[in-house]
Amino acid sequence: MSSARIEPDPAIVEAAIELGARFSLDAAALDETARFPVDNLAELHRRGFFRAVVPPPFGSAGSLVEALKVVSALSKGEPNTGLTLALQYLLHSPLLRLDRDAPSWRLRARIAESAVEDGALINVLRVEHELGTPVRGGLPATIARRVTGGWRLTGRKIYSTGAGYLAWNAVWARSDDDAPLVGVWVTPRGAEGVGVVKSWNHLGMRASASDEVTFDDVFIPDDHALDIRRPEEWAQPDSVELAWTFVLFSAIYDGVARAARDWFIEFLKRRKPTNLGAALATVPRLQEALGEIERLLYINETLLFSTAAAVDRGVAPAATQTSFLKCTVADNSIAAVEKALSLTGNHGLSRHNPLQRHYRDVLCSRIHSPQSDTVLAAAGAAALR
Amino acid sequence: MSSARIEPDPAIVEAAIELGARFSLDAAALDETARFPVDNLAELHRRGFFRAVVPPPFGSAGSLVEALKVVSALSKGEPNTGLTLALQYLLHSPLLRLDRDAPSWRLRARIAESAVEDGALINVLRVEHELGTPVRGGLPATIARRVTGGWRLTGRKIYSTGAGYLAWNAVWARSDDDAPLVGVWVTPRGAEGVGVVKSWNHLGMRASASDEVTFDDVFIPDDHALDIRRPEEWAQPDSVELAWTFVLFSAIYDGVARAARDWFIEFLKRRKPTNLGAALATVPRLQEALGEIERLLYINETLLFSTAAAVDRGVAPAATQTSFLKCTVADNSIAAVEKALSLTGNHGLSRHNPLQRHYRDVLCSRIHSPQSDTVLAAAGAAALR
Amino acid sequence: MSSARIEPDPAIVEAAIELGARFSLDAAALDETARFPVDNLAELHRRGFFRAVVPPPFGSAGSLVEALKVVSALSKGEPNTGLTLALQYLLHSPLLRLDRDAPSWRLRARIAESAVEDGALINVLRVEHELGTPVRGGLPATIARRVTGGWRLTGRKIYSTGAGYLAWNAVWARSDDDAPLVGVWVTPRGAEGVGVVKSWNHLGMRASASDEVTFDDVFIPDDHALDIRRPEEWAQPDSVELAWTFVLFSAIYDGVARAARDWFIEFLKRRKPTNLGAALATVPRLQEALGEIERLLYINETLLFSTAAAVDRGVAPAATQTSFLKCTVADNSIAAVEKALSLTGNHGLSRHNPLQRHYRDVLCSRIHSPQSDTVLAAAGAAALR
Amino acid sequence: MSSARIEPDPAIVEAAIELGARFSLDAAALDETARFPVDNLAELHRRGFFRAVVPPPFGSAGSLVEALKVVSALSKGEPNTGLTLALQYLLHSPLLRLDRDAPSWRLRARIAESAVEDGALINVLRVEHELGTPVRGGLPATIARRVTGGWRLTGRKIYSTGAGYLAWNAVWARSDDDAPLVGVWVTPRGAEGVGVVKSWNHLGMRASASDEVTFDDVFIPDDHALDIRRPEEWAQPDSVELAWTFVLFSAIYDGVARAARDWFIEFLKRRKPTNLGAALATVPRLQEALGEIERLLYINETLLFSTAAAVDRGVAPAATQTSFLKCTVADNSIAAVEKALSLTGNHGLSRHNPLQRHYRDVLCSRIHSPQSDTVLAAAGAAALR
Repeated sequence: MSSARIEPDPAIVEAAIELGARFSLDAAALDETARFPVDNLAELHRRGFFRAVVPPPFGSAGSLVEALKVVSALSKGEPNTGLTLALQYLLHSPLLRLDRDAPSWRLRARIAESAVEDGALINVLRVEHELGTPVRGGLPATIARRVTGGWRLTGRKIYSTGAGYLAWNAVWARSDDDAPLVGVWVTPRGAEGVGVVKSWNHLGMRASASDEVTFDDVFIPDDHALDIRRPEEWAQPDSVELAWTFVLFSAIYDGVARAARDWFIEFLKRRKPTNLGAALATVPRLQEALGEIERLLYINETLLFSTAAAVDRGVAPAATQTSFLKCTVADNSIAAVEKALSLTGNHGLSRHNPLQRHYRDVLCSRIHSPQSDTVLAAAGAAALR
Repeated sequence: MSSARIEPDPAIVEAAIELGARFSLDAAALDETARFPVDNLAELHRRGFFRAVVPPPFGSAGSLVEALKVVSALSKGEPNTGLTLALQYLLHSPLLRLDRDAPSWRLRARIAESAVEDGALINVLRVEHELGTPVRGGLPATIARRVTGGWRLTGRKIYSTGAGYLAWNAVWARSDDDAPLVGVWVTPRGAEGVGVVKSWNHLGMRASASDEVTFDDVFIPDDHALDIRRPEEWAQPDSVELAWTFVLFSAIYDGVARAARDWFIEFLKRRKPTNLGAALATVPRLQEALGEIERLLYINETLLFSTAAAVDRGVAPAATQTSFLKCTVADNSIAAVEKALSLTGNHGLSRHNPLQRHYRDVLCSRIHSPQSDTVLAAAGAAALR
Repeated sequence: MSSARIEPDPAIVEAAIELGARFSLDAAALDETARFPVDNLAELHRRGFFRAVVPPPFGSAGSLVEALKVVSALSKGEPNTGLTLALQYLLHSPLLRLDRDAPSWRLRARIAESAVEDGALINVLRVEHELGTPVRGGLPATIARRVTGGWRLTGRKIYSTGAGYLAWNAVWARSDDDAPLVGVWVTPRGAEGVGVVKSWNHLGMRASASDEVTFDDVFIPDDHALDIRRPEEWAQPDSVELAWTFVLFSAIYDGVARAARDWFIEFLKRRKPTNLGAALATVPRLQEALGEIERLLYINETLLFSTAAAVDRGVAPAATQTSFLKCTVADNSIAAVEKALSLTGNHGLSRHNPLQRHYRDVLCSRIHSPQSDTVLAAAGAAALR
Repeated sequence: MSSARIEPDPAIVEAAIELGARFSLDAAALDETARFPVDNLAELHRRGFFRAVVPPPFGSAGSLVEALKVVSALSKGEPNTGLTLALQYLLHSPLLRLDRDAPSWRLRARIAESAVEDGALINVLRVEHELGTPVRGGLPATIARRVTGGWRLTGRKIYSTGAGYLAWNAVWARSDDDAPLVGVWVTPRGAEGVGVVKSWNHLGMRASASDEVTFDDVFIPDDHALDIRRPEEWAQPDSVELAWTFVLFSAIYDGVARAARDWFIEFLKRRKPTNLGAALATVPRLQEALGEIERLLYINETLLFSTAAAVDRGVAPAATQTSFLKCTVADNSIAAVEKALSLTGNHGLSRHNPLQRHYRDVLCSRIHSPQSDTVLAAAGAAALR
């Protein structure tokens, strides 16, 4: 287990802010063409962000506050880039808590090195057509069949962000044993039998390449079975892992909401209707509406940073709390953009302006598990025990 | 002034329902390509809808309840078609209240005949870049210059639904007199100097061709100055005209919300997540959410039909009331679709399904004047007098 | 079955408005002392309101629009009076639809005559400690034991508005048969064994005497068993009866909200803070808030009157619709008063002013069945069938 | 300036929790009789809380986290007690930041000693009939006239929590100079001419004795003019002072909401409707509603503790942030109790149960400045600069 620094590195945070601003210039085009932000990711690799994403001894990751600032700044500029980097943080951060002689250390180390060296991307592919999201339970239909020296994997995974651009597909599947094991198998780089169906066509986050990945009898050597167990051995993720997940996913959409807020401010300052004879910024009702947006973002910021700082201090809040964070930041981010949208009429709805894109993107915050209803029902049930 | 029947014609209402269902099949393609629904409108003309839209003696219009049912049924299928037909109702319905020897009778009659005969479209073009919407006050920048035998019109009008497909552009402008007159000049069919800038690129209602129309020294004969007055002679529209406007515009978006509701019901019945082992339709929380959508549509329906029936009985509610109707139906329609969207996760947000399109369309209900803030402020001020 | 006039009688409506205004002067005192409004009810009897409440041939009731106007005007002044009169409308209106040779005609006729002659009050007592509200199912614990010439009734009923002031207690109970019958037994005037426990101590509607009534072996002659059946023979109330119930109960709380609105307007006009240098009525934000209150009341009014008029025309809306009406008017009435309360700070919360009383009263709208959750769940389930 | 410990003292926090629980037993009676909680305050003095409220060298105050925990625990039991103690924290905490040779040190020291020794209460009386709240600007009408050896004070102050029980009245007034000074004069203990008008009769916080205090030519010696300046020298309170104020006032109502939540949980566990055949706690919809209440309280807790901890670390958030905290905690606390109220029907509204009292109390959170509209408008205006 590596001991990691928890002080955010100001240089990497600065760089994230600078790149976020630069990436924002291309964000409309990425949305329009639904092109995965490969150039942005290459630039992030050049600028050392993949080192920042990977824990020691390979990189420098460790501070959730730093990760939060990085993902937030990038997502404010271009959220598909922010999402992709957030996934790398999440996939590598378990190294922080992993013993060096744990069985999965070697594979994880190799993946981590490839990230630092080549900017190799990884994602865990979980969702299947039949399942809904697996968080809600159920065995995967994707099957790893035992063969000499390894496994043969067959199945299909939807909503696989980065599909076609991933160096490593970490696939949630089950074995063909009588008593099936479940867990994660990783396809080796360049494995044969991996295909992509370009099915992702959502209202927002259009450049995330969250397409379907197909596995047709893909050979996976024994040492690429990352972590497979009996179903009952899979406990809930621990509170630290959940905190990282919920903080970083939330940071993406909070970043989008901040971009919307900034555009709204510029709009209020710039727009001077003839019949008003002054900028909209002078209208009390609009000032109050902006104040409400600021209030929502203040709540987001306080929840995100106090949680991240607690994690960095070693006192991660319980899952109930971080689940509340996830829902609240999502709701507030949507509400903030929605408010701006409802007050800017034609200007906000026009695709000539970015606000409608921010809105389409921020609506996607809801599709990350857990959904509000699940969170609230679980919290209520817990309070009644 | 023609006396009109007020009993809805069941045949035309039936036909609207049938065509709405048919038009819905093509609605996604129209949205995708942002193509104006010319085929739908041609079909509407063939099926007698332009007669239904024009009052006697040229057609059979007169019942707002009938118009409401027609616009609602068509908009549920394809709202850009519904919007275009609603505009025709609104442009022709003043004939109901116009004296035969009024100065504008002849031009209006000619326009009405062209509608019945050729399905000729008309729209009043009001909005300019500099003005915001004119409802909020201010003189138009578009100028009609007096010349021999008529006028020369120069200016630009944005948000001009049907731009490029209108037989008649009815243009809100002012004269070049020292004490300028303001009002509506109509460009003759095929007039030279009329251009279109394809600037409409909104989140929703993409097939409405609400582009910019430019007028470059367009000659308008004297008898095409439809109604021009001193600015102070323009009173508020009367309560009957406002009722027609607010009821029919509201009917469009209520129709969209009903389409969303129908899809949501189908989704709940069809979708059977593995881990639930039954259709989503069996989940009490989702039943209750659907009940809330039904409640919103019940309010819409009651407001719309009781108002339309009152107008048909000759007792149109005051402007304050019909303005409330406009805001409430818009808010409820948006809320109904939003609720469905928030409960269907990836399925609702995917462009493979129509719900996100309904949502994009219904959000455009807000851009029709008057906006909620204006309505509420005016109503509050009135209550304090 | 009597044929009834459906045109509201302007004289009775005028009188209700006049008396509502007069009753408002004493409303704070009734609230403070939790005294049942016996004087108001006596005055209503003197002024002919008990005739207006009873259908022909005994009285003149028949128009739901008239009843709505009466209950609304009285409740705006003093809602406990309005509630008590609403109950009389509901208890007598079944006579409108009852055949003269129906078994219950004679008892109903006698009760009706006592209302017209003496202002005798009746209420149906349904709720028991153990049951929650019976609408949600379940047999009553109150038992009618067969004895010579009639029955002996024993049990306890809570939330019995008018307890101690009722001439007739109509009690929902079950027989002691092996296969118990259920239904309504009516205690004769002055019956022995009827007691009252002063348990009603709610936040609002404090003067309604909705106390507990106890029945200790009360003798009920055979002809006072109003309507008793096998449990499975009790169908849902018909849509006309539900419409009367939901419209009149809703009218009470809508009336309360209108009283709150009127006070809010006076407050805005009267209050001139030093630092504003003008009346609050000049503040745009407060005008807009008042506009929102007006909008809520507009929706209430439209739902109430269009429903009542439909009932009077013989086309009562389905139960789903009138249930929606009930929830919506309750929600809107609460929201309207809440909005005024949130904007008047210390003034609204002070018991020196009536607004907090209106709020306490209007919150009681929720305790009448059906509750929103039941309504929405049923409507959603119905839409999925 | 005294250096203060910032680690909360577990003993005092424990004691607050214990006393809060004990005080809750008497809270309904205090509410019913509107009696100021003198016994509770005496007990708090006996148990050392007045030492905890006063900074060194007289007491041990200094940690806002500790103060927050104390006020929260007491207010959960009996909020009028919590409010009174919060006021003492606020009135004494400036000593933390005051230089020992500041002109006001001696008087403050004397007041502080009297608190520690006798449990002497102080409050700053600001509000006047004519002014609205002074935060919104304007000179006080209460006048201090210069006389030999001091001043003569005349005026009236409303909303003076603890009126009649205060050892020290700190009165916001102005001098009778041509260029009036404004500031705070303190009436000596037992001063003649101080009267109380029992005018406080609010919906909630009924035992707070927030009555009117009258000053009729009260003599105030020179050394009791605590802090008087030219009007323009009164800057906004600094961010530390605002943070203390907003955190502690918010803690009161958050505490009330927690009491409501606890009762709601007990109600759900205890209540078993016949027709459900199980406790309400088993109903998913109610679990989800409780989850929402938990979520609101989670947000409150995170905002309150992260702000208090920041203040204790010497990095108090800006006024905009702590104003947001104030509004948000107030809104969330009201919403949490309202939700419980709306789901418990008759049980929640009955004065036999505490929920309606919690609701009446929590509504009073809105009357503390600043109101939401002011906060949002200021924040919006600031964001536009």
